[in-house]
Amino acid sequence: MAEFIAPGVFRLTGDIRVESYGSVAGKKESEGPLGDCFDEIAEDSHLGCETWEQAESLLQRRAAGIAVTKAGLTKEDVDLVCAGDLNNQCIASAYGLRELGIPYIGLYGACSTMAESILTAALFAETGAVRRTLSVTSSHFSTAERQFRFPLSYGGQRTPTSQWTCTAAGAVMLSGSGGIKVAGGCIGVIADMGINDMTNMGSAMAPAAAETIRRYLTATGTSPEDYDHIVTGDLGTVGSELLPQVLDTVGIDIRSRHRDCGAMIFDAADGDTQDTHCGGSGCGCSAAVLCGHFLPLLETGQAENILFAATGALMSPLILQQGETIPSIAHLVHFRRV
Amino acid sequence: MAEFIAPGVFRLTGDIRVESYGSVAGKKESEGPLGDCFDEIAEDSHLGCETWEQAESLLQRRAAGIAVTKAGLTKEDVDLVCAGDLNNQCIASAYGLRELGIPYIGLYGACSTMAESILTAALFAETGAVRRTLSVTSSHFSTAERQFRFPLSYGGQRTPTSQWTCTAAGAVMLSGSGGIKVAGGCIGVIADMGINDMTNMGSAMAPAAAETIRRYLTATGTSPEDYDHIVTGDLGTVGSELLPQVLDTVGIDIRSRHRDCGAMIFDAADGDTQDTHCGGSGCGCSAAVLCGHFLPLLETGQAENILFAATGALMSPLILQQGETIPSIAHLVHFRRV
Repeated sequence: MAEFIAPGVFRLTGDIRVESYGSVAGKKESEGPLGDCFDEIAEDSHLGCETWEQAESLLQRRAAGIAVTKAGLTKEDVDLVCAGDLNNQCIASAYGLRELGIPYIGLYGACSTMAESILTAALFAETGAVRRTLSVTSSHFSTAERQFRFPLSYGGQRTPTSQWTCTAAGAVMLSGSGGIKVAGGCIGVIADMGINDMTNMGSAMAPAAAETIRRYLTATGTSPEDYDHIVTGDLGTVGSELLPQVLDTVGIDIRSRHRDCGAMIFDAADGDTQDTHCGGSGCGCSAAVLCGHFLPLLETGQAENILFAATGALMSPLILQQGETIPSIAHLVHFRRV
Repeated sequence: MAEFIAPGVFRLTGDIRVESYGSVAGKKESEGPLGDCFDEIAEDSHLGCETWEQAESLLQRRAAGIAVTKAGLTKEDVDLVCAGDLNNQCIASAYGLRELGIPYIGLYGACSTMAESILTAALFAETGAVRRTLSVTSSHFSTAERQFRFPLSYGGQRTPTSQWTCTAAGAVMLSGSGGIKVAGGCIGVIADMGINDMTNMGSAMAPAAAETIRRYLTATGTSPEDYDHIVTGDLGTVGSELLPQVLDTVGIDIRSRHRDCGAMIFDAADGDTQDTHCGGSGCGCSAAVLCGHFLPLLETGQAENILFAATGALMSPLILQQGETIPSIAHLVHFRRV
């Protein structure tokens, strides 16, 4: 069972644990500061497929396969997969995972998907309805550019505040075994501060991250110092500068604890020799950094408590063309070493 | 808690009930055989908005508002909303529900969304993490035509097997009160029989419906006669003819129990004077028919047990252009009168 703390904020009283996890990242990601931490590197952006969409599907299937194989299991041991991605109609997930034959819950949380899918899987498992679950997501630079921005061959200039969509995927397997517990979570509320610049996602998403972190800390009566790291998904360097400022207004200082997967995965904060501008983004960014970097910190005892708050921007290109602003959301998972 | 029966199939042992529900439908839907059953009719396809996308968002907000108001509550009484739709990046849901300020889980299950969102909300509630939930979805003829087919002004001819995307929305509120219980469910597995005709969705989705119904009946040891109605989402007249044939191959005859929301909402099976060809489709179709027709049957004692299996096709226009086939899924909710 779970304990209701406040609307959307809960503690898991059962024993849902991270049994295994896997990550795959592209060549550019492998050349960044975290390059060594991923389970597999896809040197070719097509992964041997004909289209980038097929390649992104394969990223998800590979990440899921790594998580299952690491635990010495097969796909028949998994009762549920929760997945989503940025593509229209979430095709990377549906086509990537259809051959698994596992009961499937499709999610759309944009770049918040990794946290959303872990929360969903954990709550499903907590009821006893399912025993072992997979949470999977991905992104791919080339599918995202073509869908949200311009065809790559157009050669458009990227703005100073833009981020680089990661070619990456991550998968987390939950069950009753393992050394990391899902201790609680916070389901995000949609925030919209009126930003309509599609090339400044960090600013659009920072308020959602701030609100979710505030809600979790307030409801649980904890402070940033109770956690080793408070991790956001893909605010990038601009959004990462904004987030603490927003939290200052409610008297919360997370500076000593805050890490952002988007700011970490490329060297944007340290010379930007990779020319990503403000760092990484995409569902796969926080998924791969969670599975490649932060979960290992918990597993090896270098951290005891981590809050993982992945952020997503919920607009579409069409609705921005119609003059709308960018609503965003952040879902939070509390991982604890046991 | 829930009882695991088989992978993806479970019984809810707690007491999660349908407290309230609401439906909104468009003018054409109001002229069909079920026209009188919806809570509200939107005579104007723009609902007074500037764009169809805004109109679809408003459909969701209205359906949710009706469900909340009917129960004499306000949005502050709701801990969670689970929603999704057919639009790229699920914008009808995100923009329609952002002003509610309720913790939000975005789903993508195409036209299976109503069953998926009820299952998700019911399992979340079953843990005790949330107390009262809303499951919402919508579709709109004009947003769907422009996104999946052709701009309306192009005036394309519709094929004989095509269905008419309903302009409609439905919302179901779950809590511990009410006369209808969520007794169990079955999370769908992705099925793909190799169909690639985007104008023949009924055929693409029938195998997924068959598989989900088979899994639930087999795992629970029940037969079609144990239910008053076995309802599918939007197979339309073609898919509704196929479904019993597929189930014949596994020795299950659902003919006396089967109803299809898509075949019921327009007069496709009875003269087709509405010129929809094979009936209705879209997330809003099964959502509005569930809330307008089937839940009232349970509430008034005209039915005791209903299986609601909404079906979704998980392709995108882009991936079909790349030569792919159409994967589909069906999620099932078992409603029981208490």
